[in-house]
Amino acid sequence: MYAVTNTSAQNAALRALALVCTLSPSPARSSSQLLAEQVLEQLENNGVETELIRVVDHDVHYGVVSGPIGEGDAWPAIRERLLAADILVLATPIWMGNPSSIMRKVLERLDGELSETDDQGHSPVYGKVAVVAVVGNEDGAHNTSAQAFQALSDVGFTVPAAGVTYWVGEAMQGTDYQDLETTPEPVASTTATVAVNAAHLARLLKSVPYPPAASS
Amino acid sequence: MYAVTNTSAQNAALRALALVCTLSPSPARSSSQLLAEQVLEQLENNGVETELIRVVDHDVHYGVVSGPIGEGDAWPAIRERLLAADILVLATPIWMGNPSSIMRKVLERLDGELSETDDQGHSPVYGKVAVVAVVGNEDGAHNTSAQAFQALSDVGFTVPAAGVTYWVGEAMQGTDYQDLETTPEPVASTTATVAVNAAHLARLLKSVPYPPAASS
Amino acid sequence: MYAVTNTSAQNAALRALALVCTLSPSPARSSSQLLAEQVLEQLENNGVETELIRVVDHDVHYGVVSGPIGEGDAWPAIRERLLAADILVLATPIWMGNPSSIMRKVLERLDGELSETDDQGHSPVYGKVAVVAVVGNEDGAHNTSAQAFQALSDVGFTVPAAGVTYWVGEAMQGTDYQDLETTPEPVASTTATVAVNAAHLARLLKSVPYPPAASS
Amino acid sequence: MYAVTNTSAQNAALRALALVCTLSPSPARSSSQLLAEQVLEQLENNGVETELIRVVDHDVHYGVVSGPIGEGDAWPAIRERLLAADILVLATPIWMGNPSSIMRKVLERLDGELSETDDQGHSPVYGKVAVVAVVGNEDGAHNTSAQAFQALSDVGFTVPAAGVTYWVGEAMQGTDYQDLETTPEPVASTTATVAVNAAHLARLLKSVPYPPAASS
Repeated sequence: MYAVTNTSAQNAALRALALVCTLSPSPARSSSQLLAEQVLEQLENNGVETELIRVVDHDVHYGVVSGPIGEGDAWPAIRERLLAADILVLATPIWMGNPSSIMRKVLERLDGELSETDDQGHSPVYGKVAVVAVVGNEDGAHNTSAQAFQALSDVGFTVPAAGVTYWVGEAMQGTDYQDLETTPEPVASTTATVAVNAAHLARLLKSVPYPPAASS
Repeated sequence: MYAVTNTSAQNAALRALALVCTLSPSPARSSSQLLAEQVLEQLENNGVETELIRVVDHDVHYGVVSGPIGEGDAWPAIRERLLAADILVLATPIWMGNPSSIMRKVLERLDGELSETDDQGHSPVYGKVAVVAVVGNEDGAHNTSAQAFQALSDVGFTVPAAGVTYWVGEAMQGTDYQDLETTPEPVASTTATVAVNAAHLARLLKSVPYPPAASS
Repeated sequence: MYAVTNTSAQNAALRALALVCTLSPSPARSSSQLLAEQVLEQLENNGVETELIRVVDHDVHYGVVSGPIGEGDAWPAIRERLLAADILVLATPIWMGNPSSIMRKVLERLDGELSETDDQGHSPVYGKVAVVAVVGNEDGAHNTSAQAFQALSDVGFTVPAAGVTYWVGEAMQGTDYQDLETTPEPVASTTATVAVNAAHLARLLKSVPYPPAASS
Repeated sequence: MYAVTNTSAQNAALRALALVCTLSPSPARSSSQLLAEQVLEQLENNGVETELIRVVDHDVHYGVVSGPIGEGDAWPAIRERLLAADILVLATPIWMGNPSSIMRKVLERLDGELSETDDQGHSPVYGKVAVVAVVGNEDGAHNTSAQAFQALSDVGFTVPAAGVTYWVGEAMQGTDYQDLETTPEPVASTTATVAVNAAHLARLLKSVPYPPAASS
């Protein structure tokens, strides 16, 4: 068993990046961005430096590699921010019960990390922690986090206990999360717990990285 | 940041439980049991004590609570084994592109853990690690691990990088995993990596548990 | 193009069977049964005779064949009712964002129909129409109907436009559909439309069956 | 019951549109386009006129409305071709076990049809038939068709028996469908059956449209 002790540097150096997958370019308001910001705020309360990118504002090209695709592909610059982070917050709206096409595009680009494994058999995102934030008018949050967790674990992220915060309204209704008068308490406390767990797990995995992948 | 050092007790005390969700009662052969056994063997190579339960051999009642449902419900005894374990290996066949009804029944019972949170806001499975093993004639492994990861994270398990090993054959073909002459190399090395990561993460989380859930 | 004319027998002979996949045996109240009954009532308004089976009340064995599995398997008798029907109403609660384990068990048994194709390449359910009714406290209806539609189309059912009615509440809340004071209007009108479309399509396909499956 | 008789015009006038959702712009080869072409060829054998659009070659903007979004949005022109068709063939590759981000983008734009219902309560695609064609190196076809069927039924398409043809290879392998030496026989005959059923159902629904949606 490991002996693990807190040091004075405990809260140093952790960074989180939120990738917001709304379909609406800035400066439109965005419920998924709002929830992402709430997760980041809670991460800051846990000593994490944060950064947010609204993906649709950048010209991310279609494909499944991590390097640049054609001219003007925005992904490599976004990826650089991701590689500098310890925690990924993947935030998305729900459309037709599923994550946005932008989230799927981000996951497709992340698929490219699997071709970049090092001599330990680890992709460049190994040891990073991923959590998910999902909002929709109605229905689809569990399916969305399921898709996210599967893809993120596959490429090398670790998913903490309680790895998602979400809000959806009653079936067939149209209010947006950003138009609620107050954040529902269960959502707020879930958001806070997601941040606590993500920060804790990221700290652990940064302190004691995964050993090399086994060969069969 | 944590300072973490290996101690002589490093390999002590970790336990894994495989819940095999085949539809076929013993003594029928089972591909999902075979893959679960391969995961357990690799976990043993990482110093983990292991145990396997074929769920369909036991009379698990339908419901969404952790305690006994009616007379003769086998779940509480299975749950006791789960609570004694640090790592859950959830193994399932694929039917119609999805996990078996037995796996869904197990997840329904695990949903009950959310009603058993302690004064830290933690369910009884908090701090445990879960990995998944999936086999089918064809198609459905990603959807199956997605469903598993979502439910398992929701109730308090942590999912490591590379949290699933799986095998499926070509579309519309009928060979079973257990009838392959040899285990395909990519499957064998994935199985080994799943075990390395699960053992590592379980050790970390046992050494340094999640802090109390935040209140908003 | 077909010339199709209504005859005096237009409303004769159509039958619908609801399979309710609640986890709770009778006589417990059931939200999914309530919604199924509402679909059946609307089907009756469209001249359809109806029947409802609560699956958990019967000892349906696990497996993927249509014939009896071991002693006392209740599926063959249920299947007989299904084969006598023109419309299947598959009703299920949501647990952890997914259909109940009972619904998955029903789909597993339906998978067996694919082994019973006739000399036209048609399974015994070919030409039948399937619709879905889904209720949960929160979230999961789209994922549930997605799973149902895929499996049902695969085994030979046809899915009409607007093939699902559903209700879920706001995220992380606990009210049941059966405890709502009134049925929300959008749910009620969706239920009615599902019935109109199912009856129309079933009549068409009964009048003019699918031609034989092509050989490549 | 309807009396339906074939007329000399039986094979007239049916049209199919394939929307191919590969991530690769022309002139790159595309497995999903190949499978779409095979479906269209079989539809032609059933008297259907066909057309194919590779979506990524056009600048479809992000959003959930059917009308133009900003300047230069290619969707309205594609939508015009869709509205002129009786059958939609939605073809997609699989990435990380899911349909491509392009397919999700197409479904998001189709979501806009629900805001265009006529005085019968029907969206503009009501009465059209949709089928799906899915290819991937490995795993994900059932989940992909599930997502497609759910969204397509929701907006008003009808899904025939056997509404999908697909190919995927063995787990963790890398051969493409377009590089197979011959089309596997089960895939070819499924493709042919999908076409037979789609053409039959489209003819029926064109001859005898759905009645007006019920008000509750």
